[in-house]
Amino acid sequence: MFNSFGNILKLTTFGESHGIAIGGVIDGFPAGVKVNFDAIQQELDRRKPGQSKIVTQRKEPDTVEFLSGIFEGVTTGASIGFVIKNINQKSKDYNHNTDVYRPSHADYTYDKKYGIRDHRGGGRTSARETANWVVAGALAKQLINHININAFTSSVGDVFMVKPYQDLDFSKIESNIVRCPDEASAEKMITKIHEIRKAGDTIGGTITCVAQNVPVGLGEPIFHKLHAELGKAMLSINAVKGFEFGSGFCGAKMQGSEHNDIFNPDGTTQSNLSGGIQGGISNGMDIYFRVAFKPVATIMQNQATTNSKGEATEIHGKGRHDPCVVPRAVPIVEALTALVLADFWLMNKTRKV
Amino acid sequence: MFNSFGNILKLTTFGESHGIAIGGVIDGFPAGVKVNFDAIQQELDRRKPGQSKIVTQRKEPDTVEFLSGIFEGVTTGASIGFVIKNINQKSKDYNHNTDVYRPSHADYTYDKKYGIRDHRGGGRTSARETANWVVAGALAKQLINHININAFTSSVGDVFMVKPYQDLDFSKIESNIVRCPDEASAEKMITKIHEIRKAGDTIGGTITCVAQNVPVGLGEPIFHKLHAELGKAMLSINAVKGFEFGSGFCGAKMQGSEHNDIFNPDGTTQSNLSGGIQGGISNGMDIYFRVAFKPVATIMQNQATTNSKGEATEIHGKGRHDPCVVPRAVPIVEALTALVLADFWLMNKTRKV
Amino acid sequence: MFNSFGNILKLTTFGESHGIAIGGVIDGFPAGVKVNFDAIQQELDRRKPGQSKIVTQRKEPDTVEFLSGIFEGVTTGASIGFVIKNINQKSKDYNHNTDVYRPSHADYTYDKKYGIRDHRGGGRTSARETANWVVAGALAKQLINHININAFTSSVGDVFMVKPYQDLDFSKIESNIVRCPDEASAEKMITKIHEIRKAGDTIGGTITCVAQNVPVGLGEPIFHKLHAELGKAMLSINAVKGFEFGSGFCGAKMQGSEHNDIFNPDGTTQSNLSGGIQGGISNGMDIYFRVAFKPVATIMQNQATTNSKGEATEIHGKGRHDPCVVPRAVPIVEALTALVLADFWLMNKTRKV
Amino acid sequence: MFNSFGNILKLTTFGESHGIAIGGVIDGFPAGVKVNFDAIQQELDRRKPGQSKIVTQRKEPDTVEFLSGIFEGVTTGASIGFVIKNINQKSKDYNHNTDVYRPSHADYTYDKKYGIRDHRGGGRTSARETANWVVAGALAKQLINHININAFTSSVGDVFMVKPYQDLDFSKIESNIVRCPDEASAEKMITKIHEIRKAGDTIGGTITCVAQNVPVGLGEPIFHKLHAELGKAMLSINAVKGFEFGSGFCGAKMQGSEHNDIFNPDGTTQSNLSGGIQGGISNGMDIYFRVAFKPVATIMQNQATTNSKGEATEIHGKGRHDPCVVPRAVPIVEALTALVLADFWLMNKTRKV
Repeated sequence: MFNSFGNILKLTTFGESHGIAIGGVIDGFPAGVKVNFDAIQQELDRRKPGQSKIVTQRKEPDTVEFLSGIFEGVTTGASIGFVIKNINQKSKDYNHNTDVYRPSHADYTYDKKYGIRDHRGGGRTSARETANWVVAGALAKQLINHININAFTSSVGDVFMVKPYQDLDFSKIESNIVRCPDEASAEKMITKIHEIRKAGDTIGGTITCVAQNVPVGLGEPIFHKLHAELGKAMLSINAVKGFEFGSGFCGAKMQGSEHNDIFNPDGTTQSNLSGGIQGGISNGMDIYFRVAFKPVATIMQNQATTNSKGEATEIHGKGRHDPCVVPRAVPIVEALTALVLADFWLMNKTRKV
Repeated sequence: MFNSFGNILKLTTFGESHGIAIGGVIDGFPAGVKVNFDAIQQELDRRKPGQSKIVTQRKEPDTVEFLSGIFEGVTTGASIGFVIKNINQKSKDYNHNTDVYRPSHADYTYDKKYGIRDHRGGGRTSARETANWVVAGALAKQLINHININAFTSSVGDVFMVKPYQDLDFSKIESNIVRCPDEASAEKMITKIHEIRKAGDTIGGTITCVAQNVPVGLGEPIFHKLHAELGKAMLSINAVKGFEFGSGFCGAKMQGSEHNDIFNPDGTTQSNLSGGIQGGISNGMDIYFRVAFKPVATIMQNQATTNSKGEATEIHGKGRHDPCVVPRAVPIVEALTALVLADFWLMNKTRKV
Repeated sequence: MFNSFGNILKLTTFGESHGIAIGGVIDGFPAGVKVNFDAIQQELDRRKPGQSKIVTQRKEPDTVEFLSGIFEGVTTGASIGFVIKNINQKSKDYNHNTDVYRPSHADYTYDKKYGIRDHRGGGRTSARETANWVVAGALAKQLINHININAFTSSVGDVFMVKPYQDLDFSKIESNIVRCPDEASAEKMITKIHEIRKAGDTIGGTITCVAQNVPVGLGEPIFHKLHAELGKAMLSINAVKGFEFGSGFCGAKMQGSEHNDIFNPDGTTQSNLSGGIQGGISNGMDIYFRVAFKPVATIMQNQATTNSKGEATEIHGKGRHDPCVVPRAVPIVEALTALVLADFWLMNKTRKV
Repeated sequence: MFNSFGNILKLTTFGESHGIAIGGVIDGFPAGVKVNFDAIQQELDRRKPGQSKIVTQRKEPDTVEFLSGIFEGVTTGASIGFVIKNINQKSKDYNHNTDVYRPSHADYTYDKKYGIRDHRGGGRTSARETANWVVAGALAKQLINHININAFTSSVGDVFMVKPYQDLDFSKIESNIVRCPDEASAEKMITKIHEIRKAGDTIGGTITCVAQNVPVGLGEPIFHKLHAELGKAMLSINAVKGFEFGSGFCGAKMQGSEHNDIFNPDGTTQSNLSGGIQGGISNGMDIYFRVAFKPVATIMQNQATTNSKGEATEIHGKGRHDPCVVPRAVPIVEALTALVLADFWLMNKTRKV
């Protein structure tokens, strides 16, 4: 149960950053979908390290190999197994950390929980795992290709893009390396990340995601509300500290008379503070939400810490790390959104005679 | 799968606000726990309507009746069935809404999804369901009574309590009707709610929850991270729009060098921006998070809306509704937190030989 | 997880034979099904004690009360809660067993597993639980009313009905109290049970079940094969010791050249040793299987046994028990079959685009 | 959900007989188990084709490669991914069947259910999948190595080994190619299979499995009874038509006074018709059960059949097939038994405070 995500469409994953390979099984994917393999690789390329100057300079080709469930390019209804080989793991970068708990990493908790830890690059805790999610999400997108999902960087540190998403051109998300569709904001963000990296530091940020053309009716109350599953998905991503949808935390300051979305006769609403979801079920309006990422814990500075013997020691980041995870997390957010929506889309087929 | 919450400790619920009864089944509760029934009823009383002047004036005794799984006051390991009768449902308050979609309610989405809707008081969408959660959560608290869970109101509209939780005396949470342990803030919040109610309006707010003495090791990555399950739980509560833990959205503005929690030799950390969770696993420090609630959708004002035939019409709130859900939601937040922690506490028994 | 059955259509139950009530939650039942309550009660009446001279003479009305999920006679898609009150529990019949382990009952295993046991009438282990299954199964039958499910008694002790099911008139199942559609065999079975009861003894038997008009395609390999779920369901019934479908154990003696079912051009097969299932998926032919029930463990004779202190003692059955469970188990077999088929019927809606 | 087996210890698999590889993910395996890789390979070798003259002459090395979850030879608590490459698939053996439905195979049902079929060697329906189960089962055995699990061939066609299992020396199971520990019976079985193969035919058989030293308390009623999960597991194996435990179908002919297992003061029982399970929970006595396998459907004889266009045609088995699956199924039965017991052993840790 621990490494599975989803209900009918279920992804089960495995893999450590410095093992032989990572991979997973996609179960419940319907038969009859013609697979666009290029589109999947394209999503992996958006996530992969080394793609630009503001991300980690590790080089990994991240090529996915499908092992089953697809026959002559079409899904068969059988479970889809896949692997991504780990090519460029430099374990030696991490060997010095064998016994030392990196601050704000999961070294300590894994050690205490399991009594053993694969210390090479974070082992199972590495964000390398998210490549698996991108594979599954890219497939899910092809299942629900009537829905448009666009995520983008909405802030880096204190640099915020203030435009509402309605004023953005999503086709520009890929036009810059920080993945912010507003050029002016993008430039400031990129500058910010460069500065931070030079200082051997890291920085947090937020991603906003918008799902459009979502059919009415997705979501399964009481305990599988659409926004609750989206929230859980986002909170599963490494470094995420918060999730809000629609009016979010701002909504907590508002009054009902200003917050309510008044209906048009066709069932659409004049405003959309609800964020496209009512009672845990999509209402046909745009779904939008925002995800907060903390700064990467590995910094190129000296930090005091402790080791497994309880001795005080010092650590200095080595290896090749992202100064800011947000640009590479954009396709991850989209992938998990696609998985959640596709799962609910399948479930919804069973809810009415 | 839709109405179940939890993995090993699993709550499955049923019930509409204006049906005969609500209730549920608590499965996986270990044998041998002596049940304190008074403590359970006490939690229900904290949630029940009519308890003070700033909540709905509906009167429901909300008495839980356990039907199984407890023998001579001790849990037997069998599933625990329970019901709470609906005593005071005034369906006529709602009859005028049969055909009208209340703005920012789930009337429209339920109608579209299921093709049928129990329109009496919101049916399954009613927050009355949360009484079930409080029952299960109160039982879960007794299973993990070494852990202390305290939730409290941290803001109402624009009235924020600014003290850090470390400076609060949790024993004062119940000393005022808004459940804010800081008296000065509490008074302002109560005044705010009174004003709002007089205006026939409603207001949002936030709840902060702190879990202390949580053992190291709770949480099951990759897809059952402790904070992800807490987030999902909170987002399941009616009217919730956002969740953040530890540094939360503020963390997204920070740099790694200021955000990292430096270890003490004993494994505790000097700061706790992580919010007691690393890599999805509790690290023994306090777990704390914040939940945003939108204003209640039913207001005592005229609002334009539409009906199921697509005709424009008007609606004016009737019935007895909360001007602010936050005070009554405090025990709900605690209950779900207890359920999540108890579930992980049980799971953790299986994770190491 | 422990007290739930099914995947999309999921039944979760609770209740002990001598508690206040038993009941359950039916989750995932689609909206829009008009409920025939009489048909449900009729199934309960087929299972209830006291219905004839060859079953236990306990009197329990076994009236089900639906608490949610049905509005104006139609299912709403919300979870369906229900209870059956325990009216006629005579706990005193069982008080003498408080400390004694009844041979071939679950007293000993429950005591050892849970460290506590509700000794009144078997507690959770009582076959009273199966009334819950009949309720859920009767509802499931209404969901898949295009499928015909007929179970009947095919043997009692060494009295076997030898006719193949194709030669039987299923409308005669209810024409006698042992529920065997062949009158001559039925008479012999009834005589057998009368003899056994007079001797203070009990007797085993088998039930055969036939599902007709099952659409092609139900079943979800690899691990949710249709016959595997049917087998698990049947093995969940109290006293069941074996399950076989199609050729069953006889098939293990056969050669491929005689066992293979040759296709007709329309996809039907000339023989049906497969029992309507190929590779775990229904093939449109009749599904048939056979279930073996051991003799009831409680006999009206002296038996040596032991108690919880490890002392040798004696026991003599009291209370009102069935000399043979098979006649009352017929509706239980049908109910679980309906639940399994309905679950797969819903799942199948998601397996192909 | 479809390709997963188990609850806390969960195996999720993928793979077709003629794809690149098969494999799976073992989730919930506790940390801290030192892995004996040779023992795993040994189990695979017992299952692999080409091992003797009475099984298929396909040659596949069936080498498992572990990709994650094991670090320096010890399990880490992370999910364990593994693959087994398909080396020796001769797809051309199967190409003539592209469009033809083989009698008593799953070609027809897969085609109808999914609208597409990987026709190479049965695709997902191939018993090659069971190699995955053997890997997982071999690991599970190492987790519960205090329990002894022995399966053996108890009949081939009408050749039955009549000795009770108590009179057998399990160390002799591997001393002959049919895996029957009674030498005289083994010889007859081997002769039988040789005859059948020469005739181009196939034959069914049964396997008996005995689990010893099982602790009291495994099994989770009401819906996860130990024997129900064992039954489901066995019925998941290709070609299985029946399952019985303890007295099984014979028990259905018996009276309570002869069937009841009388207790000894220490909680053991004088007889064991219960098969080591009471009320779905292990009672500490030997668990034993019997599994019926039909004859392999592919025979080297002409058979009438139909194709996907509904045209009558003929088929003649090609490829390299087993004349009797039973000898190779012995390790499969043991593997699934180990998985079921290990899962319940873990679950049991959570059931009592």
